[in-house]
Amino acid sequence: MSDEANPVRQALDAYAAAVYVKDVDAFALIYADDVHVFDSWGQWEYAGLDAWRAMATAWFGSLGDERVQVTFTDVGSAVGDTAAVGHAAVTFTAVSPPGERLRSTTNRMTVGLEKRNGTWKIVHEHTSLPIDMATGKALFPA
Amino acid sequence: MSDEANPVRQALDAYAAAVYVKDVDAFALIYADDVHVFDSWGQWEYAGLDAWRAMATAWFGSLGDERVQVTFTDVGSAVGDTAAVGHAAVTFTAVSPPGERLRSTTNRMTVGLEKRNGTWKIVHEHTSLPIDMATGKALFPA
Repeated sequence: MSDEANPVRQALDAYAAAVYVKDVDAFALIYADDVHVFDSWGQWEYAGLDAWRAMATAWFGSLGDERVQVTFTDVGSAVGDTAAVGHAAVTFTAVSPPGERLRSTTNRMTVGLEKRNGTWKIVHEHTSLPIDMATGKALFPA
Repeated sequence: MSDEANPVRQALDAYAAAVYVKDVDAFALIYADDVHVFDSWGQWEYAGLDAWRAMATAWFGSLGDERVQVTFTDVGSAVGDTAAVGHAAVTFTAVSPPGERLRSTTNRMTVGLEKRNGTWKIVHEHTSLPIDMATGKALFPA
């Protein structure tokens, strides 16, 4: 399967594009109304697009004049007729208006997709960092 | 789709059964040879069944005469012809030989499955806990 036709790759590309332009509507379009998210930070889960959209609105609104460049590495996927799953390392890089890279962090990401009325939507997303068992603290990649 | 025919539910049930009897071979049978795992603890990822099998061997070997009862709640899934994805809250409860519940912990879990030669296998698994942004520490459910 070519990367262009892979719904996982298409969803990740759409995610990066929506985040870069901080477009909450474009971001929400990638997801199903009943999306379920295990996010890296702060709470157990997000249930439904309204909650996930509010997360994006707060995130994009917190960025000021910075932008976030999202890149994916080590992408793997399994694609069926109406369901697909993919995983990647996702790097978020904050960029200043003149284009300077300010800081970056990498998380682990899984997306689950379902084809609904002919359109692939993310129905489940899971991002995280591994945790050190001795300290209970998140481990960031080297 | 009935629960019995759902490959996500079947994989979760097989996972719980293999862990309860500490059977590394039964555990490994649930997974594809090229399985990729983002686990909650200690390292970024496990690549391939040999690495994941070694994790299970060490885990089961560490239990002494205790057993681990695995239960799943809030299960959701999307199932296609050759790919499926599911998520759940997974609770691990340590049980003493006379059946006393010693301690328990709950993680977030996602599984991605692919049908290969007619058999569903877990090709990707992701378990985690959310992290408190202020402290960098794992947040356990209430």
